[in-house]
Amino acid sequence: MKTNDTEWPEMRLHPVGVVRNNIKKPMLVANDDGIELRERIEKTRENREIVRNMVSELELNPEMSELLEGVEDFSHILVIYWPHLVPLERRKLKQVHPMGRKDLPIRGIFSTCSPARPNPILITAVRLLEREGTVLRVQGLDAVDGSPILDIKPYVRSYLGVENPVVADWMEKINKELEDDPVTEDVSP
Amino acid sequence: MKTNDTEWPEMRLHPVGVVRNNIKKPMLVANDDGIELRERIEKTRENREIVRNMVSELELNPEMSELLEGVEDFSHILVIYWPHLVPLERRKLKQVHPMGRKDLPIRGIFSTCSPARPNPILITAVRLLEREGTVLRVQGLDAVDGSPILDIKPYVRSYLGVENPVVADWMEKINKELEDDPVTEDVSP
Repeated sequence: MKTNDTEWPEMRLHPVGVVRNNIKKPMLVANDDGIELRERIEKTRENREIVRNMVSELELNPEMSELLEGVEDFSHILVIYWPHLVPLERRKLKQVHPMGRKDLPIRGIFSTCSPARPNPILITAVRLLEREGTVLRVQGLDAVDGSPILDIKPYVRSYLGVENPVVADWMEKINKELEDDPVTEDVSP
Repeated sequence: MKTNDTEWPEMRLHPVGVVRNNIKKPMLVANDDGIELRERIEKTRENREIVRNMVSELELNPEMSELLEGVEDFSHILVIYWPHLVPLERRKLKQVHPMGRKDLPIRGIFSTCSPARPNPILITAVRLLEREGTVLRVQGLDAVDGSPILDIKPYVRSYLGVENPVVADWMEKINKELEDDPVTEDVSP
């Protein structure tokens, strides 16, 4: 199929709300050079813990009130948001070192979680702690403060659950690194 | 935050490809009246089985070739697509009976999986069977043939995995109905 921009004039997004939290800039900047790998891994681990525990507020626009009816009956929701700090020109990126790490192989954008992608739509499953009017308090969202919210969905296993997903070796490597306890490593004889 | 359309001119989507499969129209039409509940549940169950087993082709645009590099190292991917058959005016819907079923309570759009929503971005985790150039063969996608693809992501547990999600009673009811084996029920004395 030939797809061009004029064919889908209706594919324009409108923010339904905004993320509020304490992350004021992206935690991981792709070209954060001059930082050693070990330090980088440690920083990633710290950031992950911060995000896991952090509470964000999803401030939905007042006119979205009726659309939220019943969302509090779900323990988890999917937040779909726009990484507004990614510069427009970075959407043209084709391949990257995952997480900006030169020690990992270059991979296509569609094989990575890079926020810089042709249609930068980011998706995270989070715990819904509380709804207060049009504000949802959630835990575990890695969005930056001020990110426009595009959609909220209930977390439904039939659409999103996968029993034993196999991931690429480089991602498995990252996961292992983050699991390892650096303190335990350091005190070994 | 006051959000209006002119504030985010860059939030325009561009298809990166198109879905090809045998679903030529939405399987579940919201106002499918004149069909009995039991028949409706049976039909939903059938459709679910069809989708679970069906293979779809994701035809990515040729210029997306480099972006796909390495995606075949993942067993599951997330497909983000646009439900192009949802009429524009239905995006203004605020509340619906889930799955168009009048026996279920009316709920806000953000509590349901209705494709008619302010920003109709649909998301499904699918099994990646094969990559052949810019075509990905996947299993379990419920998109309609011709749906524009917006993004492909690897399935990553840290973003999408939830251990024991609690869902609303109405959704639990649907899940239970679909699990029940109607044949077993019918032959009971």
